[in-house]
Amino acid sequence: MNNFQYKNPTKILFGKNQIKNLTSEIPAGSKVLMLYGGGSIKTNGIYEQVTKALSNFNFIEFGGIPANPEYSVLMEALKIIKKEKITFLLAVGGGSVIDGTKFLASAALYSGLDPWNILVNGERTFKGMPFGTVLTLPATGTEMNSGAVITKTETKEKLGMGGPGLFPQFSILDPEVVKSIPKRQLANGLADSFTHVLEQYMTYSVDAKLQDRFAESILQTIIEVAPAILKDATDYNAAANFMWSCTMALNGLIQQGVPSDWAIHMIGHELTALYGIDHARTLAIITESHYKYNLASKKEKLAQYAQRVWNITEGTVEEKALEGIAKTTEFFHSLGLKTKLAEYTEDYKGTAEEISKRFTDRGWTGIGEHGKLTPSDVEKIVEMSY
Amino acid sequence: MNNFQYKNPTKILFGKNQIKNLTSEIPAGSKVLMLYGGGSIKTNGIYEQVTKALSNFNFIEFGGIPANPEYSVLMEALKIIKKEKITFLLAVGGGSVIDGTKFLASAALYSGLDPWNILVNGERTFKGMPFGTVLTLPATGTEMNSGAVITKTETKEKLGMGGPGLFPQFSILDPEVVKSIPKRQLANGLADSFTHVLEQYMTYSVDAKLQDRFAESILQTIIEVAPAILKDATDYNAAANFMWSCTMALNGLIQQGVPSDWAIHMIGHELTALYGIDHARTLAIITESHYKYNLASKKEKLAQYAQRVWNITEGTVEEKALEGIAKTTEFFHSLGLKTKLAEYTEDYKGTAEEISKRFTDRGWTGIGEHGKLTPSDVEKIVEMSY
Repeated sequence: MNNFQYKNPTKILFGKNQIKNLTSEIPAGSKVLMLYGGGSIKTNGIYEQVTKALSNFNFIEFGGIPANPEYSVLMEALKIIKKEKITFLLAVGGGSVIDGTKFLASAALYSGLDPWNILVNGERTFKGMPFGTVLTLPATGTEMNSGAVITKTETKEKLGMGGPGLFPQFSILDPEVVKSIPKRQLANGLADSFTHVLEQYMTYSVDAKLQDRFAESILQTIIEVAPAILKDATDYNAAANFMWSCTMALNGLIQQGVPSDWAIHMIGHELTALYGIDHARTLAIITESHYKYNLASKKEKLAQYAQRVWNITEGTVEEKALEGIAKTTEFFHSLGLKTKLAEYTEDYKGTAEEISKRFTDRGWTGIGEHGKLTPSDVEKIVEMSY
Repeated sequence: MNNFQYKNPTKILFGKNQIKNLTSEIPAGSKVLMLYGGGSIKTNGIYEQVTKALSNFNFIEFGGIPANPEYSVLMEALKIIKKEKITFLLAVGGGSVIDGTKFLASAALYSGLDPWNILVNGERTFKGMPFGTVLTLPATGTEMNSGAVITKTETKEKLGMGGPGLFPQFSILDPEVVKSIPKRQLANGLADSFTHVLEQYMTYSVDAKLQDRFAESILQTIIEVAPAILKDATDYNAAANFMWSCTMALNGLIQQGVPSDWAIHMIGHELTALYGIDHARTLAIITESHYKYNLASKKEKLAQYAQRVWNITEGTVEEKALEGIAKTTEFFHSLGLKTKLAEYTEDYKGTAEEISKRFTDRGWTGIGEHGKLTPSDVEKIVEMSY
């Protein structure tokens, strides 16, 4: 097991009727900016619950944060934060709204020239404006971690940021929100959280037995609840298990003491930036070819995964590994996700070269668990995903 | 799944050579009281590492905190804290030293008449003196939770306390300490952490799939590493998996959203108070009879445990459940722990009545997952353990 340092100070309020606790979780006297997305919270009852709970606070609303939180929109919110002397941010939404809020928490206290540098230069945030979240879409785990991904449409860029100053003060997770989420988003959330676990688990072994088993636990739970969620999103228990699994998939716990990979995400982000494909679907496109391309170095862990998660007990290590990959693709299909780039866009030719070039231009010469996947490897992985 | 609120702000520094980080983790300018136990840290190199890391601080030592941290000894330390105007406590030891330090963190800021009331009246601590820990004995999980158990020999009492103000600021977990721990203590730690998981898992189902699987993950890991640890405590990977499992067994995570039981612990504490039997061994004594006595209400979860943790796939639910209990007893035996009270003391007659009377006297009329085990039930469970 590798050395690690771990601290996660986010308070989780999980379950039915937790939104009203906003009243006591936000520091008294705060001037609050409530941030949200496309307005679905106005049709599912969340907006009423939140604004009622905020009635004792001086608060302003900022809606319209798009999926893949857009830099230019966030810069409008930043102006309001400064002009109105906001002291607390409340994100009400899914991963995009929360990630956008994290960017604002950082940018609001940023002393540099241009907040875009936080992203371009990978500047860590040690102190951000305090914020809380009301999660309306289980998927990314951002509600209990300190990372975010921000998009700049102008340059088709999607870049990460983070730091210990960007943990939410609190996050409210009410599984009852799941029932009003469109099936497409539910499928995305299931695939996204599943892949988050894979990225931290499908790596060379450091004999971290508990981390492996925790990762397998999350995968098994997601597999078990997925059909129930997609069949009937009003199934509260399924929704609760789904929601908590998404959080645990990326709150930092399972990645302590182990290597992680993230190549699927790094490549997938480019597909979103280039074609606007849903984040989770880009992961479904890249996963199979990434694992097949890297079979030699990953087959032992793939075989363990096949055995423990999918009960595949027959065959050689390599046969089990390949069967594990096939089961993963089947799982994505069972969610209704297509797993080939050509199924999403006719304009796929040249994508591999384009992404490879972007990686080269950014100096990303080696990605993945060993930091050894070159832009040329990336090109081949993307080609295999056509 | 039940509603829950969860926050665990303790920073974990895990791995080799982490003790030197004390220098930056303790707030600059602190006046530190370093607390430890019987002095084993002076023979295994921990003392030197800690005092070296503290060299930039004004610090005082307080050694001699006994196993089952004794109230009268702690009151001596409290006098020093007040007289010397200590501002930060550093526990260097196992569960007893850390629990004793938690009591001191609470008592140092206590505004009531007599700190014993914190224990007797179950007064929650919302603000304690800040403290950190260097864990030298994996077992109790106290290094990452906010609870403690304190003993008063005079009245043969062992009582719990806790509150959100009692999380360590940080805990340093260096698995290299394991190699110098006597085999008896290692066996205790394995049994203790195993039982901690059982108390939070072997309860009626609320369909908390992920919590169940996490609990099973910890149990499986402990079972897997136990022989390696007992055979060769210098096996770093086994030690690391053991140490992290002990922490995860009782840092609050697996008990979120599920009922817990704790009857084994509540009864076991009395055996320590009456006969001085090691805490972990009291749990080994009570476990089998508790589960057999409550077979009707626990058999479904016991059968799940038998199947998932021990691979018992044949038989009825009840048969699997009984096999799971038998496997648990075998596991304790494999650690070298005896599981009958008569194997620890000849003077066991009347113990059941005595413990039952203590529970009655304290008004503990219903314990366990449903709060329905009466002092009379407790008497029968203890009798079955003779």
